[in-house]
Amino acid sequence: MKITRIDKSRIDQADLENPVFGTQFSDHMLVCKYKNGKWEEPEIKPYGPMSFTPALHTLHYGQALFEGQKAYYMSDGTIGIFRPEMNAKRLNHSAKRMFMPEFPEDLFVDGLKQLVEIDRAWVPKKEGYSLYLRPFMFGSSEFVAARPSEEYIFCVVMSPVGPYYAGEVKVKVEETYTRSASGGVGSTKCAGNYGGAFFATDQARKEGYTQVIWTDHKNHELIEESGTMNVGFVIGDTFITPPLSDRILAGITRDSILTLLRDTDIVKNVEERPIKVEEVIAAAEAGTLKEVFGMGTAAVVSQISTIGFRGTDYKIETPKDGYAMKIKKALTAIRMGDADDKYNWMVRL
Amino acid sequence: MKITRIDKSRIDQADLENPVFGTQFSDHMLVCKYKNGKWEEPEIKPYGPMSFTPALHTLHYGQALFEGQKAYYMSDGTIGIFRPEMNAKRLNHSAKRMFMPEFPEDLFVDGLKQLVEIDRAWVPKKEGYSLYLRPFMFGSSEFVAARPSEEYIFCVVMSPVGPYYAGEVKVKVEETYTRSASGGVGSTKCAGNYGGAFFATDQARKEGYTQVIWTDHKNHELIEESGTMNVGFVIGDTFITPPLSDRILAGITRDSILTLLRDTDIVKNVEERPIKVEEVIAAAEAGTLKEVFGMGTAAVVSQISTIGFRGTDYKIETPKDGYAMKIKKALTAIRMGDADDKYNWMVRL
Ligand SMILES: Cc1ncc(COP(=O)(O)O)c(C=O)c1O
Ligand SMILES: Cc1ncc(COP(=O)(O)O)c(C=O)c1O
Repeated sequence: MKITRIDKSRIDQADLENPVFGTQFSDHMLVCKYKNGKWEEPEIKPYGPMSFTPALHTLHYGQALFEGQKAYYMSDGTIGIFRPEMNAKRLNHSAKRMFMPEFPEDLFVDGLKQLVEIDRAWVPKKEGYSLYLRPFMFGSSEFVAARPSEEYIFCVVMSPVGPYYAGEVKVKVEETYTRSASGGVGSTKCAGNYGGAFFATDQARKEGYTQVIWTDHKNHELIEESGTMNVGFVIGDTFITPPLSDRILAGITRDSILTLLRDTDIVKNVEERPIKVEEVIAAAEAGTLKEVFGMGTAAVVSQISTIGFRGTDYKIETPKDGYAMKIKKALTAIRMGDADDKYNWMVRL
Repeated sequence: MKITRIDKSRIDQADLENPVFGTQFSDHMLVCKYKNGKWEEPEIKPYGPMSFTPALHTLHYGQALFEGQKAYYMSDGTIGIFRPEMNAKRLNHSAKRMFMPEFPEDLFVDGLKQLVEIDRAWVPKKEGYSLYLRPFMFGSSEFVAARPSEEYIFCVVMSPVGPYYAGEVKVKVEETYTRSASGGVGSTKCAGNYGGAFFATDQARKEGYTQVIWTDHKNHELIEESGTMNVGFVIGDTFITPPLSDRILAGITRDSILTLLRDTDIVKNVEERPIKVEEVIAAAEAGTLKEVFGMGTAAVVSQISTIGFRGTDYKIETPKDGYAMKIKKALTAIRMGDADDKYNWMVRL
């Protein structure tokens, strides 16, 4: 790894107290280029502009993907990263499907660690704050023809972020627009999945909702995800989340929560299985739908207070000491190093 | 329109005799920026690099789309562009679905004309050669958060291209991977649709095919498109092509061919209707499948010689004076100004 340090840190101009998500970037970035069929030596260097011609492949053909995770101060004052090897694996899952080269997983984890170490002044110290790490990769050949890029750039930038507060989360069951289909790219974090989702999300906003709940491409009957989070339901004392498929992003938070729930007595039963919109609505009407929440890196757990379905709003409790909050607490304890890390989830700097 | 001319043309270094598609670019490009909710004054300026930070929105969230069309010398020595207003409309159709701002259609057409005029030395004179025009648009804000870009860049670059020769075209009916779904972005020319297709195309290549025939997302029973072309079948003396939907790109070549076929006696019947793979295979077995061809800007008409389906290769005639070639001839006559342009398709410089 080549390391070129910035002359003078920009940290004194940064706002680590009230950071706006994804708008300030730390002093350094990691860049690694793929050329002639192989990855060159990665370089950590000053964050700054890149120069491309308008023929940049990804602008036309969208071979682009990303990851997202956080580095933060644990209770004992070390900086930790949560399960970074899972992001490395998922990046490569996305890469394969997008016909992009895989990036060495150990280099991914090691690169993140070195980069955070160099910019450790950028890791906010306030509780709930963190340094958001954004690895991404894109086709960087400069030609305009509908065939795969030959060159790629893997890059990591970092941005200090505050605690996630979404306010009241009202979601609408989306029955018109589709995020992904069997055989498609829905299980990847390719850029196009996000650009393709903005329209439906905006429609939902205009109707007074915060987000959509995506349903299956065939009949819009099955629940898939909510916005950019996986989604879980507690019906009676059973936790239910849709199974993974090539239509759903395999969330690392989802995986961690499933592991925790199977290992604790927070809920009685844990089910990964297809769940129909009608089952959720019936449970809401019967009063057995206890809680609904999104699962993702940003909020860890995000309680949903309303599900809108065909014009009717179904209210859901968002208790401060219910299932969602118990899960969040248990996960946070591991993340902060306050509970036994028996799954070896934390990678410390 | 602001115009800044290049100091010295690069035309003397260009190869207009044997151009490689999309690798050489003409002297100028058109750039127009969208900021604070409106398009700024467009500028024609020297083709050259753009500088972005790694937080460039489109690298992460894929709001990116493009168009493709050609300018070429007509028989009377004027330079013509084929139905550019259709590309302008389609760009805006894509833009809406990708939650991007629409670009004024008259400015699109006028911009192309002015740009080609300035770089007219780049329009190859050889028959079958042309200047490929590539309008495209992408989200250009520089933040990393999963919400729509606030700024956008519309750009047009141009590349001299030779006649399209694909060799023998063998297509494989794709029953595993999916290009698009109802409610998705399949009817747009968003970048992600292309990046998402490379993997399946490569699989088909490895099995000895040139391209895939995409089938519907639900059951892989209905024929959709072939690679980046719309597809037509002649069964008996009937031309059949799948109807437009939100899963299929509305090809301008397809539209033009439908218009021509309905207005001439090249085929007896013209049908836009869902067509099942099994219908095509049955016709191939019965000997009534006369011809199959792709329709698109690149090749106009591209004859398909083989359809691979579940391990069996069905051979199809590719006659030099059959339906496909009659259609190509009729369309080419209009494009070259040799036949009456009764639909007003040609825009001359
Ligand atoms: C579409 C989608 N689903 C789910 C998730 C949750 O994944 P994770 O828990 O790994 O953050 C994300 C965010 O990464 C996402 O973008
Ligand atoms: C997916 C797809 N289908 C069909 C077409 C054919 O469209 P057109 O005839 O406008 O070139 C294209 C090419 O633009 C395409 O990319």
